[in-house]
Amino acid sequence: MAKAFFDFIAQHVQLSPEEKAFVEELLPTQQLPKGHLLLQEQRISTQFFFIIKGCIRLFYLVDGIEKSAFFYTENEFVSSYESFTKQVPAKHNFQTTEPTEVLVISQESAYKLLAYSPKFDFLARVIMEVELATYQNMVASFITLSPEQRYLQFLEQKGALQQRLPQHYIASYLGISAESLSRIKKRILLKKQQ
Amino acid sequence: MAKAFFDFIAQHVQLSPEEKAFVEELLPTQQLPKGHLLLQEQRISTQFFFIIKGCIRLFYLVDGIEKSAFFYTENEFVSSYESFTKQVPAKHNFQTTEPTEVLVISQESAYKLLAYSPKFDFLARVIMEVELATYQNMVASFITLSPEQRYLQFLEQKGALQQRLPQHYIASYLGISAESLSRIKKRILLKKQQ
Repeated sequence: MAKAFFDFIAQHVQLSPEEKAFVEELLPTQQLPKGHLLLQEQRISTQFFFIIKGCIRLFYLVDGIEKSAFFYTENEFVSSYESFTKQVPAKHNFQTTEPTEVLVISQESAYKLLAYSPKFDFLARVIMEVELATYQNMVASFITLSPEQRYLQFLEQKGALQQRLPQHYIASYLGISAESLSRIKKRILLKKQQ
Repeated sequence: MAKAFFDFIAQHVQLSPEEKAFVEELLPTQQLPKGHLLLQEQRISTQFFFIIKGCIRLFYLVDGIEKSAFFYTENEFVSSYESFTKQVPAKHNFQTTEPTEVLVISQESAYKLLAYSPKFDFLARVIMEVELATYQNMVASFITLSPEQRYLQFLEQKGALQQRLPQHYIASYLGISAESLSRIKKRILLKKQQ
């Protein structure tokens, strides 16, 4: 069981040893290969995830072309909240970009946790708040930043991913072509050398 | 007191006559002139709003230029959730685009409601879910739609606003110039006539 997961919980609520044991028993971890699809749009989400190690890409399909929107990494939750809670078709595609280890919270486990203690109800709200903040930041970044500024923000927030992801995923995330990303990188390098 | 507000509540929880009276007594309505700033970025949000009549624009400031991100209208909640709940500086600017009537939920009222009945705790979650879905749709729309498609979606979802808003707000919302918006409108008109 992931220490990081309990560290996250401990930031928000204090679990008793019994509650901890209940969580450990209930939530399995999964080792996923690179390229594994955890959720496809139009399907109904029945699980959400906490990333122990690895990276999961959120993408949308536009006329058959994948457009990357976000990269979730270590210690982040990945969920299609509306689909999971209301059992409506998902708008999200989630796929691992490298071998990834996740903690799996199924519909069934979620209900068991919520019934077990109000602490988990509180945690569910915290997770949702984090998701809301993530999307609000995405919107603000789309509107207020240029592709170059978005790339610099990406390096600042998720710099470690730069080596781990195919460059066309990053270009797609910035809404630009792979060629434009190359130009931006060169420009940044030049500025650094000055 | 807004009937629409109680209609919204009734979709999710059943209030007793006493609870209804408590809400009516607690939450004031306000008549705001056009151009009124309800929240400025970097300030701490102490209120959120339910629009009875009118329109509130969400915008971001980029090098002193206002970039419109969303238009909230009748029966929608307007909040800077993170700022309101955690008392951190807001990232949002909210401004009326026309004379607007809102129901005001202050920090103090919110606490009173939450302490009064767990029903309001449930409602708070519903409001947050709606906000999350709104932002998720914004992100999906930025990534998957062209400016013309975004304009068609705007007409479909908030068509009534088309006559009520200055065109440069709509252009800014689409991320294009007022001239490009004119061209898109002409193209759509031409297609209709064919």
